[in-house]
Amino acid sequence: MMTLYGYFRSGTSHRTRIALNLKGLDYDDIAINLAQDEQLEDAFKAINPQGLVPVLKADDLLLYQSPAILEWLEEAYPEHALLPQDAAGRMHVRALSAMIGCDIHPINNRRILQYLRNELSVDKEAVIAWCNRWITEGFAALETRLAADKNRGQFCYGDRPTFADCYLIPQVSSARRFKVDLSAYPNIVAIDTHCRTLKAFAVADPMMQPDAPKHA
Amino acid sequence: MMTLYGYFRSGTSHRTRIALNLKGLDYDDIAINLAQDEQLEDAFKAINPQGLVPVLKADDLLLYQSPAILEWLEEAYPEHALLPQDAAGRMHVRALSAMIGCDIHPINNRRILQYLRNELSVDKEAVIAWCNRWITEGFAALETRLAADKNRGQFCYGDRPTFADCYLIPQVSSARRFKVDLSAYPNIVAIDTHCRTLKAFAVADPMMQPDAPKHA
Repeated sequence: MMTLYGYFRSGTSHRTRIALNLKGLDYDDIAINLAQDEQLEDAFKAINPQGLVPVLKADDLLLYQSPAILEWLEEAYPEHALLPQDAAGRMHVRALSAMIGCDIHPINNRRILQYLRNELSVDKEAVIAWCNRWITEGFAALETRLAADKNRGQFCYGDRPTFADCYLIPQVSSARRFKVDLSAYPNIVAIDTHCRTLKAFAVADPMMQPDAPKHA
Repeated sequence: MMTLYGYFRSGTSHRTRIALNLKGLDYDDIAINLAQDEQLEDAFKAINPQGLVPVLKADDLLLYQSPAILEWLEEAYPEHALLPQDAAGRMHVRALSAMIGCDIHPINNRRILQYLRNELSVDKEAVIAWCNRWITEGFAALETRLAADKNRGQFCYGDRPTFADCYLIPQVSSARRFKVDLSAYPNIVAIDTHCRTLKAFAVADPMMQPDAPKHA
């Protein structure tokens, strides 16, 4: 049994949950409360000195950094492949993933927004504008790529979910939280709508996690 | 013959040049002048709608996003492997790479620093402090990982260069440009010093590129 150290709202934890679910792998959850900076405590830093979630414990290994975790899962559990068979397809899927995983997500990460607020005295509205800027710039480029792909089915690539969907859906969740107008990205919205009908995506949703706040 | 669309000082172009050189692959250079925003012109956006370098033209494919380019090169040209043989080693190398490629580099990218300066009126000193913060935070975590690896040789992993060295050396170049004090990271400095003695790294250096400014 694997153990995932994560946080309900962390986009990188979310993408890892989706990948585990798509591969049909069962795992235990250990919640690291980022709102209380538990990721910076010694207990967690002994698990990951970078003080970032997620970490996946599997086969006595402590896997860290979600791009590396996803590649490891793909190699260790090739069934329900999350990368296409052809080299060009794999490049495309990894590139779409990196457009989100390098150029959108980390820039709107909790530690960055805290620095903007606390060290640079950026007000709430300007922090939201910051997030909007990087999400819309990234989504515009993604939308162009998705629209140009004539072989695309209901997912980012072809007819089956790939790494790119694992990255995209959490980023759409984050975009909604920052009130980004998604109407300019019909392909992204269609993929998101379809993926959310699938159990692997639905049960990975932040609000479905045990550490999510409960509402009446 | 491959063609690399890049910029001498771009860290992602730099890491791609190192990987190409380590694999002994010859390529033509097309310089996209980021200082003149050539990457945002229609001519380049037709090549990459995201308006970011590098792009590698190979086998009639336009490869984009350096993490995907490196994985493609490793699959297409397995000789001079840049990933270890064992799954745990590959995870580790990819994770070290992502620590730089996701959590350091994109946050200090040109477009981010421009936004800080132009939209948030952050002064020069505070922009340098911003870069220092993310480089030192990332390097501290990297240094801990490198120091804990008892099997490490002269590179980030084992006795041969890997993706992780392709990512690290450009980030050290960037750290020096932002005047980061590197004395707290002896393992990083030792790897950097060793790599720079090797031709594959030396000829990939920003100042060795045809588009670098010439000094008397």
